[in-house]
Amino acid sequence: MVGGGEGAFIGAVHRAAATLGQEYVLVCGAFASDAARSRQTGVVLDLPPDRCYADYASMFAAEAALPSDSRMEVVVIATPNHLHLPVARAALQRGFHVLSEKPATLNLAECFELRDAVAASGRLYGLTHPYSGYPLVVEATERVRSGALGRIRKVIVEYTQGWLAEPIERSGHKQALWRLDPKQGGASGCMGDIGVHAFQLAEQVSGLRTTELCADLNRVVPGRQLDDDGTVLLRFGNGASGVLVASQICTGDENDLRLRVYGDAASLEWNQQEPNSLWLKPAHAPVQQLRTGGPGLSAAASAHTRLPAGHPEGYLEAFANLYRTFAVQVRAHPAGASPAHTVPGIDTALRGMAFIDTAVAASASVQKWHKFPEVGA
Amino acid sequence: MVGGGEGAFIGAVHRAAATLGQEYVLVCGAFASDAARSRQTGVVLDLPPDRCYADYASMFAAEAALPSDSRMEVVVIATPNHLHLPVARAALQRGFHVLSEKPATLNLAECFELRDAVAASGRLYGLTHPYSGYPLVVEATERVRSGALGRIRKVIVEYTQGWLAEPIERSGHKQALWRLDPKQGGASGCMGDIGVHAFQLAEQVSGLRTTELCADLNRVVPGRQLDDDGTVLLRFGNGASGVLVASQICTGDENDLRLRVYGDAASLEWNQQEPNSLWLKPAHAPVQQLRTGGPGLSAAASAHTRLPAGHPEGYLEAFANLYRTFAVQVRAHPAGASPAHTVPGIDTALRGMAFIDTAVAASASVQKWHKFPEVGA
Amino acid sequence: MVGGGEGAFIGAVHRAAATLGQEYVLVCGAFASDAARSRQTGVVLDLPPDRCYADYASMFAAEAALPSDSRMEVVVIATPNHLHLPVARAALQRGFHVLSEKPATLNLAECFELRDAVAASGRLYGLTHPYSGYPLVVEATERVRSGALGRIRKVIVEYTQGWLAEPIERSGHKQALWRLDPKQGGASGCMGDIGVHAFQLAEQVSGLRTTELCADLNRVVPGRQLDDDGTVLLRFGNGASGVLVASQICTGDENDLRLRVYGDAASLEWNQQEPNSLWLKPAHAPVQQLRTGGPGLSAAASAHTRLPAGHPEGYLEAFANLYRTFAVQVRAHPAGASPAHTVPGIDTALRGMAFIDTAVAASASVQKWHKFPEVGA
Amino acid sequence: MVGGGEGAFIGAVHRAAATLGQEYVLVCGAFASDAARSRQTGVVLDLPPDRCYADYASMFAAEAALPSDSRMEVVVIATPNHLHLPVARAALQRGFHVLSEKPATLNLAECFELRDAVAASGRLYGLTHPYSGYPLVVEATERVRSGALGRIRKVIVEYTQGWLAEPIERSGHKQALWRLDPKQGGASGCMGDIGVHAFQLAEQVSGLRTTELCADLNRVVPGRQLDDDGTVLLRFGNGASGVLVASQICTGDENDLRLRVYGDAASLEWNQQEPNSLWLKPAHAPVQQLRTGGPGLSAAASAHTRLPAGHPEGYLEAFANLYRTFAVQVRAHPAGASPAHTVPGIDTALRGMAFIDTAVAASASVQKWHKFPEVGA
Repeated sequence: MVGGGEGAFIGAVHRAAATLGQEYVLVCGAFASDAARSRQTGVVLDLPPDRCYADYASMFAAEAALPSDSRMEVVVIATPNHLHLPVARAALQRGFHVLSEKPATLNLAECFELRDAVAASGRLYGLTHPYSGYPLVVEATERVRSGALGRIRKVIVEYTQGWLAEPIERSGHKQALWRLDPKQGGASGCMGDIGVHAFQLAEQVSGLRTTELCADLNRVVPGRQLDDDGTVLLRFGNGASGVLVASQICTGDENDLRLRVYGDAASLEWNQQEPNSLWLKPAHAPVQQLRTGGPGLSAAASAHTRLPAGHPEGYLEAFANLYRTFAVQVRAHPAGASPAHTVPGIDTALRGMAFIDTAVAASASVQKWHKFPEVGA
Repeated sequence: MVGGGEGAFIGAVHRAAATLGQEYVLVCGAFASDAARSRQTGVVLDLPPDRCYADYASMFAAEAALPSDSRMEVVVIATPNHLHLPVARAALQRGFHVLSEKPATLNLAECFELRDAVAASGRLYGLTHPYSGYPLVVEATERVRSGALGRIRKVIVEYTQGWLAEPIERSGHKQALWRLDPKQGGASGCMGDIGVHAFQLAEQVSGLRTTELCADLNRVVPGRQLDDDGTVLLRFGNGASGVLVASQICTGDENDLRLRVYGDAASLEWNQQEPNSLWLKPAHAPVQQLRTGGPGLSAAASAHTRLPAGHPEGYLEAFANLYRTFAVQVRAHPAGASPAHTVPGIDTALRGMAFIDTAVAASASVQKWHKFPEVGA
Repeated sequence: MVGGGEGAFIGAVHRAAATLGQEYVLVCGAFASDAARSRQTGVVLDLPPDRCYADYASMFAAEAALPSDSRMEVVVIATPNHLHLPVARAALQRGFHVLSEKPATLNLAECFELRDAVAASGRLYGLTHPYSGYPLVVEATERVRSGALGRIRKVIVEYTQGWLAEPIERSGHKQALWRLDPKQGGASGCMGDIGVHAFQLAEQVSGLRTTELCADLNRVVPGRQLDDDGTVLLRFGNGASGVLVASQICTGDENDLRLRVYGDAASLEWNQQEPNSLWLKPAHAPVQQLRTGGPGLSAAASAHTRLPAGHPEGYLEAFANLYRTFAVQVRAHPAGASPAHTVPGIDTALRGMAFIDTAVAASASVQKWHKFPEVGA
Repeated sequence: MVGGGEGAFIGAVHRAAATLGQEYVLVCGAFASDAARSRQTGVVLDLPPDRCYADYASMFAAEAALPSDSRMEVVVIATPNHLHLPVARAALQRGFHVLSEKPATLNLAECFELRDAVAASGRLYGLTHPYSGYPLVVEATERVRSGALGRIRKVIVEYTQGWLAEPIERSGHKQALWRLDPKQGGASGCMGDIGVHAFQLAEQVSGLRTTELCADLNRVVPGRQLDDDGTVLLRFGNGASGVLVASQICTGDENDLRLRVYGDAASLEWNQQEPNSLWLKPAHAPVQQLRTGGPGLSAAASAHTRLPAGHPEGYLEAFANLYRTFAVQVRAHPAGASPAHTVPGIDTALRGMAFIDTAVAASASVQKWHKFPEVGA
């Protein structure tokens, strides 16, 4: 693991998810920019001292020199955004698979570099969009793919939260500091942090691809250099329209990620706050409440469920599903095989970065609609 | 009553609401464009035959000639939109107060004429935005006004429904036919029908006034002349932003009118589908569920509640509150008094028509932001 | 109307429901035990002074003497319980139909007298269990009757509220005073007030009839003469079991009347606090959310719905449905006809009083099970 | 681990929870009554072959002989109920701590033996009631303990599920088979499996102790030897009353474990199906929604939470909390210390078995109330 030192929220999440996924064991890390702090985190995590590295470059060099049955297999990147590309590139060049936090890079140009590095390495690249690992998100994706909703006409996706409703970066909140710093976070705060999750979810479940967008990003809390709120209107390839609302200044909201996909035969609704229900709304029949582990689910959704219905599953379970899925990909990799279900990869990375860059540019423009780059798949 | 003949949804609603409001009795009507059908509706409603009129002009003439203690006092307008202005003008000129369905007129220009007619008549004009009559909408308005939410930063209002998800106008659905006909409905279908409700609710509760907007209106079901779906981005005078989603092609949705108002001290959320709960989300304390008739409500909200908590109130009760409030206004009118609480009036009418006209123009433009006319109050 | 003077909660509810039902007009009343207060209520309600009576006996005499087209048609009884029998008997003897508040009488013995008086009079008798008028309660009843749930195995019905959580009777709360006074309220406080509603709902929807019960009634707030809380276990004729929880000391609850009926093919759940959803849980398929006015409802439920789906209906609408249904019964009466759907009548009255009496006796006994009298139908 | 072989639901849950708790590593097992199947499970779980034992006796002997830094520290018992006592006794005698599935033993007499064995061994004994590990159950317990609810008056606890709604034991469902077999499951099916969870939750959160009960247990699905449904009325030491409903024949229900605790100052409500909300209902103020990780929680609840609010936690997280808490107890044990927070132990075991035995006896009796043994604490 690179990054994710003590106090970093997402590092601990990755470790818990990896553990719960029961496929991976943490073997080494370069957890902080400071060698001493990195080592300290490693100690807390019960790692052998010689595998708590001062920095990622030395870790990759040292691990690559170990025998194949004891060296690290996959690099997890949990650093601030500006390090995603250099760390991923270095890891791929040393022959490690990479599982990276989003957004993939600082900007789309960097992401093209990343794409080339992945291609050149022949290694696997995965992007941790944890919401895509919820069983009922998988179910929603399957329902749309199967045609059960008919033609998709409209997608509404929202991700509202309140953790940046106050200027906590001024009192030294670490995560807030780097996320709102263009050098470390990139061109967007809110869209780069959570808008990109909403975008990925909308494209994954609807199966649609954005072709144009209109954006209104705002810096609500005074003094911020990057947006902490915004709305993006989407136009999809099939003529459908979309609305994406993302905001971090929504006082009192938690992680209200809610997706609605409207088809001409039926519609779907899912809310991350109560992730074990998926609402299916047919045109002329009562609404159905699909439940994690419950009747009527696809094989794909069931494969993402650990327990019988009635045992609520949460965020860590969803995240752990990504780790498990990536492990399946890694195992299939030597034979050149690709499993039916995979974690979001470099194509998703490209589209995510295209989303952020285009939204930022569109928001600054007086022109309403902006073309969405033809990247990814 | 003008309009609202047999089979018309909203006519029956008005009559039930008036009855429940226990202030008004239906005394006469011109219920349909056809004299025979008008009379037939009157018979069903137990009106005396001589007060079932062939058309509104003859009704106003005849009623005005009656002694003051038996003649009609208030004209309720429940016709398609293109008749709102002529009927209202004629009624006002004859000295009747007017309570009209929204949108107030066919377009903003007509609404200026209406404003002048109201002013010239010295009579009262009310606009039936029934959602404004829910006790907890009143409470939300009070909470914002009192400063409990701090500075308002963001407003999200949605009104999604599915009744036009299929081309029911092609099989002769009366209401769908006129609402989707520019000559009878005006320049917008969806914004004119439900977007204007969402707009009114957002401005009423937030206390903010729109200064600019950006619009994306869509005709989703092929063959329609008017929008059946759309999103409007709002900018308010205080710098806050808003998102307004209205759609009539949302398969499986009922009348999902949901309002969220985010302040820097607290936020509010209300959903018309479960109208007896209002969610108050303070910055650093647990979410509170305010309930119709429950503890902690303002006197204004209590005055809009009929029953103790635990006796759910619904749409008709909200609508009836408008009738009751208008009756209070009518009673206070001879003395030149205006009660503290009033139904939406000509100012709201002007802003609603400005909203529709500006949204239609903005949607057709390549330019993102469009100035919102300085009308109303 | 007898009873329901100023300040009485249920009198105003009856009047609003009657109005909303659009079948009945209040023509006269004896609203209070005191002649002056009775008259005062009548004045407030805009009744002619000569039809505001000093007491019910003089009202029945005077009204019976009026010509048939102007005299009262139906007597509504909204007094404390101890007056239900004498008022109803007097009204029936004078030839009026009776619509009475529950519980029907002070005890089962009185109810047998009432039954005989109804039979002797040839008039209609209705009992206002308003929850039975909710569209989705009608739907639930129909679903069970149609066999959609299979064999019913278990019924759980709860009615918890908090209005008697504190000794408000000591500070003179009128309704609390008489309800907790054995002379006016009868042998039970909580079961007589709300337990009997829960019992009626359970028997109506399940279609089952209680044959034995076990009861645990409590006086929770010190100093009370009657129960304010209790649980009753039920055994039904088909071998199914039931649990009935009723309590008035549940701090913070409103009118949490919730019914669950479990069959071997499917189950149903309904909650009065959100009365526009009915949950159908099939054995091997996703849960369905049936909605007032929504798809999939029976003709009987639709006949109890005023508005299209998405316009929430509440307690008054349910109560008004009873008034409307009773009007249909009254209109059919001269021809000796009985409509398919009727309000709860004398049979329900008998079973309700049997429930109260048996529960009180069973609670005082050391023996677990007690036979339920074979009364009603 | 003893028991929990392939296909056993709860064995896999224990392993996942232990893993997620990040305190324990599975080092050995006797997973099945059949030596070959036991070994096969071990292989699947990546255990070394020499630590996959043929039976628990040989496992305890072999492990006890290992050096202290490599031998098993805690025995997890995940067998059918009839083996709980012999396995626990053997483990304790060999000096291992024991973490056991509930119910603790086959009956109360056995549980006294277990109590003595625990006392004699000086080892720790923990009982896995996973619902007690939910952060908001901890919060509820703290709120009651702190007096925030005032005097507790009533407790309603329900656990309804549908997995035994059909006779799946006839088609060989393993878990159903042993749970409904008196020799393996004990004297009660439903109360022994889930009633005991509900009982534990009610006593833990309310802080009250049962002194009398009345029971109605049913065998709903024909042919069963043990109850699959039942209701138990409770009387507590402080005069409060309780209702416990447990049923496994509730078609369409999942694990609807819902607890309500009513005090004279405030009430609480929690539902396992949506475990991240706890509803606090004060006497004269709006209902509050407490959230996992949200504002206003006690330190104890926060210590049971892994992630910031908005990252839903579920059943495995709750279960993992037990493993973590037990690890803290084990670490403190050598010093003779006991942490403030502990998992349910032998006292809970005794009360649980007393509950089952008394409920079974009471159900068979014609007498209503039965004394609850004074056991546990």
